[in-house]
Amino acid sequence: MTKFISPLAATLVPYVPGEQPKDKKYIKLNTNENPYPPSPKVKAAIESELENLRLYPDPDAEKPREAAAEYFNKVLGLTGGDALTKKNIFMGNGSDEILALLCPAFFSGSKVAFPDITYTFYPVIASLFEVPCVNIPLRDDFTLDQDAVKNLPDDVAGMFLCNPNAPTGAAISLDEIKAILEADADKLIVVDEAYVDFGAETAVGLVNKYDNLLVVQTLSKSRQLAGIRCGLAIASEELIGVLDTVKNTFNSYTLDRLGNAAACAAFADVEYFDETRKKIADTRDKVSAQLSELGWDVIPSKSNFIFAQPPAGSATAEEFFHELRGKGILVRYFAKPRINNRLRITIGTPEDMETFVGAVKEMMAEHAK
Amino acid sequence: MTKFISPLAATLVPYVPGEQPKDKKYIKLNTNENPYPPSPKVKAAIESELENLRLYPDPDAEKPREAAAEYFNKVLGLTGGDALTKKNIFMGNGSDEILALLCPAFFSGSKVAFPDITYTFYPVIASLFEVPCVNIPLRDDFTLDQDAVKNLPDDVAGMFLCNPNAPTGAAISLDEIKAILEADADKLIVVDEAYVDFGAETAVGLVNKYDNLLVVQTLSKSRQLAGIRCGLAIASEELIGVLDTVKNTFNSYTLDRLGNAAACAAFADVEYFDETRKKIADTRDKVSAQLSELGWDVIPSKSNFIFAQPPAGSATAEEFFHELRGKGILVRYFAKPRINNRLRITIGTPEDMETFVGAVKEMMAEHAK
Repeated sequence: MTKFISPLAATLVPYVPGEQPKDKKYIKLNTNENPYPPSPKVKAAIESELENLRLYPDPDAEKPREAAAEYFNKVLGLTGGDALTKKNIFMGNGSDEILALLCPAFFSGSKVAFPDITYTFYPVIASLFEVPCVNIPLRDDFTLDQDAVKNLPDDVAGMFLCNPNAPTGAAISLDEIKAILEADADKLIVVDEAYVDFGAETAVGLVNKYDNLLVVQTLSKSRQLAGIRCGLAIASEELIGVLDTVKNTFNSYTLDRLGNAAACAAFADVEYFDETRKKIADTRDKVSAQLSELGWDVIPSKSNFIFAQPPAGSATAEEFFHELRGKGILVRYFAKPRINNRLRITIGTPEDMETFVGAVKEMMAEHAK
Repeated sequence: MTKFISPLAATLVPYVPGEQPKDKKYIKLNTNENPYPPSPKVKAAIESELENLRLYPDPDAEKPREAAAEYFNKVLGLTGGDALTKKNIFMGNGSDEILALLCPAFFSGSKVAFPDITYTFYPVIASLFEVPCVNIPLRDDFTLDQDAVKNLPDDVAGMFLCNPNAPTGAAISLDEIKAILEADADKLIVVDEAYVDFGAETAVGLVNKYDNLLVVQTLSKSRQLAGIRCGLAIASEELIGVLDTVKNTFNSYTLDRLGNAAACAAFADVEYFDETRKKIADTRDKVSAQLSELGWDVIPSKSNFIFAQPPAGSATAEEFFHELRGKGILVRYFAKPRINNRLRITIGTPEDMETFVGAVKEMMAEHAK
């Protein structure tokens, strides 16, 4: 360990993202990537921007902010005081960067709360900005205990609420979100909607109604752009203004020229977006039914993954994880209390999932011998 | 102001980058962009990566790290214990992001020093991570007072040293860097070489000799990729390891797939790189001589910009700034003590600079009436 490390850095435990293997070709069902390529319009938009690479991007990313506002107004039918403008939108280098910037923007000097079973990046970014965390236990069936998230303690400035939740895939309704916003009116409620487009209800339409709501979305999942690193926050102008200040203290240009172009094109092609997310939801429902028939406990999912527990008497989730890897199929396994006998399985193409279900059946037959 | 802002965020004053105008076409000599497009190989590399956008990039950016190490070993003739590997290189979303991550990595809990006249982003990022700053006054002629940077106070953990300096363009020699590294052996010396490729001596070859040296470079200037956002740090494996930990606490994938591809291609095309940086150095020397002939005080520059003061009796720098803008030429003016009668002028193409010098002559003739 170098003597130059800061006392803070010496305490940090980095987030470990899902494996990106380089050794051979796998069926990758481990990092919630989309099995379909982005809209062909994205490729064209990037190509048309290649002549301008010597110039800095727009530090305010105005065009993708406008494109996102226009998309939400159209599909959610937002008008009048509910309608969004570019001032309601913030763009970042992936939604992870936005989640990180939220800590100094709103939580420094206070605490932040989130469920005990959720996206494991939240405590990591909180540690970088020295924000203490408060855990809210989910119920035994991994549903959110509404009473536990209402009336958060005074020393908590806000909450990360992943909806649908990761890694469970379970969603809460818009009415439940509203009830939380009203019960915790003096807390900032960050609704992380990384997976919302696969079947849950978005809270984006509420941001001009609730000054304590900030929604985070990403283009990595439902818009097939994990390779581009683009996320967005949607909130009141005041909250977005604070995020802008913090961003401009950290890095003026977080979204590059090609990301700006790709985001605009992705928001504009609603037809392709709707078609591909429906395909994934259909495949998810089919695989969920197949695994349930095989005796697995599958949490009803509104996301592009399922979180499933093998039946008693079969192999453990950890054994399945290793055996699937041996067969060239990567899924995600978390060696954490409460969830260490479950697998998180990203929904791939129908062909990928047929191979996956086939492999599971084979392994179950083997174990039953 | 929203009541949800953190006490920290309420104190932040964001960095203001040079204007990226949207109203009309300017000759842009205000943000140190390169007037030449990137290597044609960069475009080809990006195009070949467009099929993979649905997948996350390599979080470790191994390929551009290897390409950078290979480049430095080749051009600096580094062998044996001096040779670099990918473990000596860190890649970030622009060098600004790297400068920001250095604060929690090495300076949190202590102070950081830098000259009073230098890149104005340093105090901004220090404020985000609550690191107090110590100013080291440059001499009247804007040269570095070597005695003042040696034997830094005990409560200072390190120093940002921009070489060549911005906005002056003045460089110090490798021998002077070595003397500082040796005098401040218990301080981390960050040599910010954003502009080094236009004529100064790089300290990259020293990173395996001095455990307190960390060099930062960018692909935005000499490699024509401001629109891509890619910077790198070069240091001992131990220092790079700390930066990796902090990065993986902040955002797993800061450099996207297209940035990974572009960086590899940019480092590989040494011929194009050498040709274009020589053109800029030649143009710079010519414009410096022309302005000097007109009576301007031009600090000898080793960068892709010059920092010049109009002659007494002519208009002020601020007046020149506004009048040039009216003529469609953007330069940078800083309303700051000691430098508020100077312009920072980025070196464009020979044609851009002919237009610029012509406009200056015209204005001087007008003022002489």
